[in-house]
Amino acid sequence: MDKPRRPRAETPKGFRDYFGTEVTERKAMLDAIAGVYHRYGFDPLETAAVETVEALGKYLPDVDRPNEGVFAWQDEDADWLALRYDLTAPLARVAAQYRNELPSPYRRYAMGPVWRNEKPGPGRFRQFYQCDADTVGSGSVAADAEICAMLADALEAVGIERGDYVVKVNNRKVLNGVMEVAGLAGDDKEAERGIVLRAIDKIDRLGVEGVRALLGEGRTDESGDFSKGAGLSEEQAEVVMGFVSASSKVMDRLDAHARIAREAGSEAFADTLERAVFSETMAIGQDLDLSIAEKRVWNEFTLEHLDGLVANSATGSEGVAELRAIADLLAAQDYQADRIRIDPGVVRGLGYYTGPVYEAELTFPITDEKTGRPRNFGSVAGGGRYDGLVKRFTGQEVPATGVSIGVDRLLAALRAKGRTQGEAQGPVVVTVMDRNRMADYMGMVNDLRNPEDGGERIRAEVYLGNPKNFGNQLKYADKRQSPVAVIQGGNEAEKGTVILKDLILGAKIAESATLEEWRDRPAQVEVPRADLVAEVRKMLGK
Amino acid sequence: MDKPRRPRAETPKGFRDYFGTEVTERKAMLDAIAGVYHRYGFDPLETAAVETVEALGKYLPDVDRPNEGVFAWQDEDADWLALRYDLTAPLARVAAQYRNELPSPYRRYAMGPVWRNEKPGPGRFRQFYQCDADTVGSGSVAADAEICAMLADALEAVGIERGDYVVKVNNRKVLNGVMEVAGLAGDDKEAERGIVLRAIDKIDRLGVEGVRALLGEGRTDESGDFSKGAGLSEEQAEVVMGFVSASSKVMDRLDAHARIAREAGSEAFADTLERAVFSETMAIGQDLDLSIAEKRVWNEFTLEHLDGLVANSATGSEGVAELRAIADLLAAQDYQADRIRIDPGVVRGLGYYTGPVYEAELTFPITDEKTGRPRNFGSVAGGGRYDGLVKRFTGQEVPATGVSIGVDRLLAALRAKGRTQGEAQGPVVVTVMDRNRMADYMGMVNDLRNPEDGGERIRAEVYLGNPKNFGNQLKYADKRQSPVAVIQGGNEAEKGTVILKDLILGAKIAESATLEEWRDRPAQVEVPRADLVAEVRKMLGK
Repeated sequence: MDKPRRPRAETPKGFRDYFGTEVTERKAMLDAIAGVYHRYGFDPLETAAVETVEALGKYLPDVDRPNEGVFAWQDEDADWLALRYDLTAPLARVAAQYRNELPSPYRRYAMGPVWRNEKPGPGRFRQFYQCDADTVGSGSVAADAEICAMLADALEAVGIERGDYVVKVNNRKVLNGVMEVAGLAGDDKEAERGIVLRAIDKIDRLGVEGVRALLGEGRTDESGDFSKGAGLSEEQAEVVMGFVSASSKVMDRLDAHARIAREAGSEAFADTLERAVFSETMAIGQDLDLSIAEKRVWNEFTLEHLDGLVANSATGSEGVAELRAIADLLAAQDYQADRIRIDPGVVRGLGYYTGPVYEAELTFPITDEKTGRPRNFGSVAGGGRYDGLVKRFTGQEVPATGVSIGVDRLLAALRAKGRTQGEAQGPVVVTVMDRNRMADYMGMVNDLRNPEDGGERIRAEVYLGNPKNFGNQLKYADKRQSPVAVIQGGNEAEKGTVILKDLILGAKIAESATLEEWRDRPAQVEVPRADLVAEVRKMLGK
Repeated sequence: MDKPRRPRAETPKGFRDYFGTEVTERKAMLDAIAGVYHRYGFDPLETAAVETVEALGKYLPDVDRPNEGVFAWQDEDADWLALRYDLTAPLARVAAQYRNELPSPYRRYAMGPVWRNEKPGPGRFRQFYQCDADTVGSGSVAADAEICAMLADALEAVGIERGDYVVKVNNRKVLNGVMEVAGLAGDDKEAERGIVLRAIDKIDRLGVEGVRALLGEGRTDESGDFSKGAGLSEEQAEVVMGFVSASSKVMDRLDAHARIAREAGSEAFADTLERAVFSETMAIGQDLDLSIAEKRVWNEFTLEHLDGLVANSATGSEGVAELRAIADLLAAQDYQADRIRIDPGVVRGLGYYTGPVYEAELTFPITDEKTGRPRNFGSVAGGGRYDGLVKRFTGQEVPATGVSIGVDRLLAALRAKGRTQGEAQGPVVVTVMDRNRMADYMGMVNDLRNPEDGGERIRAEVYLGNPKNFGNQLKYADKRQSPVAVIQGGNEAEKGTVILKDLILGAKIAESATLEEWRDRPAQVEVPRADLVAEVRKMLGK
């Protein structure tokens, strides 16, 4: 027998499906973010999923796969095409293609899926959503400051409360200045710089010790794998570590100030500073009722410390000056260090950043799946200034800066906080007692959906499976999370009535049948057909 | 000189970008449609863009390209992957993959891009949006009727008025019955059936003559190209033509009834019927104030005529009975022939349909771009019953029916009707007179976006380009379609005021400077900085 093989009903590896509230919750979140972006004057842009490989360029971080991490194929006219791996590369293409038509600066936002041809893993998918906002054509740090403020607003708009997040800002120029001071400038040191940057980027996971090891000979992790280090001298490593531990230096400084404050008799201020020191792992100000002056201390101290570190590097000093300008612009709009904080630990993996870089971190604790211990939720968005991307196409420098929100991670955070807005309740289900009276049942759902009084419409459907087994119909209503089932058998039809079953109440009664409070509320009522809409509304509390 | 070649800043051929209101208008339309689908109890589903080639199957109509019309590539683990070409094939895969978890019947809607590897042409793109709703697991014609009603509701929800559309319903079983009666049943006649179906599908374009030619030896079109015909005998062709011209047969019948009505003295009814005959090219009832009884006449007559045609075919008779049941269910909810009409001219290209097929046509005239003559806008949605798609995977029959809305075409129709809801107005632009006071300007936009009184937020942005040339700033505001520009130079800053420029009024005055009505409304006012929000609101009429 030569039976044709049946196709497998499977998503390709690393891809997944989203059902019901998974879709509506994400949509509600993206709508809220789009509202903030729109209010800031950003316009939507939607490019195609497909770009030419040459337009996309090679900017993927950590690419360890032969075809550079993208899904690509050769078109019939010999062009290589690929699925976009982010929303920034298509924006650069658009900015170059329409440079004579678009307003300049061009503020745009974009939301949609991107694709990465990476090894799939648990929770790691090859298609995921991004939600970006970028300003193309402005070299002003005001553009960076604006993006940071907008990011903070967007997080609050979707339901992340003030104190539960912090936007951290750093500057690649400061990083470059540190490299210079550590003697790691120059084209021949690119490999070392790469190792150093990746090490700094992992400080949250590796700790100060781990980073120090990677700056030197290398590091052996818990599984015994050895990572080769940058091979820095003791002296070079010191410079970098001074930078990496800027936060703890600020802590020392706060501590010292606390002592001075206490000696001067300012007990309250001293207490506040000391509490700030102890909340090191959290965002400063999170649980503290800091005054504006106190909140500003953090960014001031950090900037002073960085100034000292890169005093011998023009690039580094320029970077610190830019960060100071950003902090000042933000402070003037009352975005203080409790919301947007200068933090030298931020590196951002992508190679194309040239100036300020920023990252939004959620600071509330969740339980780590691997260790079982509480840890901060972590990063949900990141971005920075990339002044070279459009130049690839046009040869002209076009400064740009922007942020990308990791949609799935932010959504996971909202779920962890119980802040999602998706609707869990299903439709009213009209059951079918007599398949010859289908027109009557469809009339009922029609009345519910389009009430004659023009009042609130009710989500409703008629059971369309085989109506023979009535139990199956109620099981179906249950699976649909239906709040009300409508029943009309021959008797009811004759009397001109319908039976309404309150399925939510029914479930509660089943759970705790002895509760007094349910005694007087019948889970089932018989009402005139003419009152169907009014009675269902009553049952739904509408 | 070995300069590296710059990448071209171009979308790949057949792809395009969507800007600003193009995105928001589509989103508003899809949101309105989703609202209707939701109200009917449909749940959202979002599958990935990528499927395995074997899961997608080969169901594309009119495929004349080597790789079967899809964008496909080989994954590293040897699976062939492809971009989905519609939303139905992924649904069939989902219905099979999750058959134990999903409610049955499963009503789902999906919206998103699909990709076709076809030759691009003017207005013909290789990525476009679809918006589908399907019911999987119900063999009841009530499911088909529901989709048709929902389609009508969706069109009205987005702004297509009653009378401007008609949902046409046919049944593949009727078509098959006609084939049987014409002696075209059997596996060896598949090629002939294909030619006949495609000919019927093109009746709007080819006319009765053209279809007749294609049933016989073949047809030479205006450009001289010859299309081979099905080679039917005179007798066979007669049967098919009787079916194709069912509409005109109904017209004759209406005409005859009009005569009878006139003889019987029912002048008004006779007039109505005659007008219906003359409105042949439009949807019946469009411009006629038909009573319910009169509207029903159309579907009754059509069904009677079809009954006669396929009397000798069991399949055909079953098809007519199904259509009659659909018409009855719809009529009971007051969807009459002016909105949903039985029409034997509907074929639908896709090969997988097995029962009722339907199509939404917009009946208002637009100017044909090629001929310059007015014609009906045409089809914007189509669908039908496909009982075999899930069986491919599971081996078990799973009946399903559903519709797909052509998002771009419907959006074009809304634009033609002036019914889109996208916002054309840009943000308030705060100009920069002194770059050292950027913090002040950012404070102004912040006040507009987040008013202290908690009142309506105003979309606003600060100018982030080079502020040196003030004229450029106003040009920018103009390009952004900004309603108001805010200006604060040194003088104003000293006085604690800002200047508001009403750009809409300014443009109107520039257009017609003599108009009396503008005389007393100054296009520019100086107001206290503290009143910025209140005064801008006033200017915006908020």
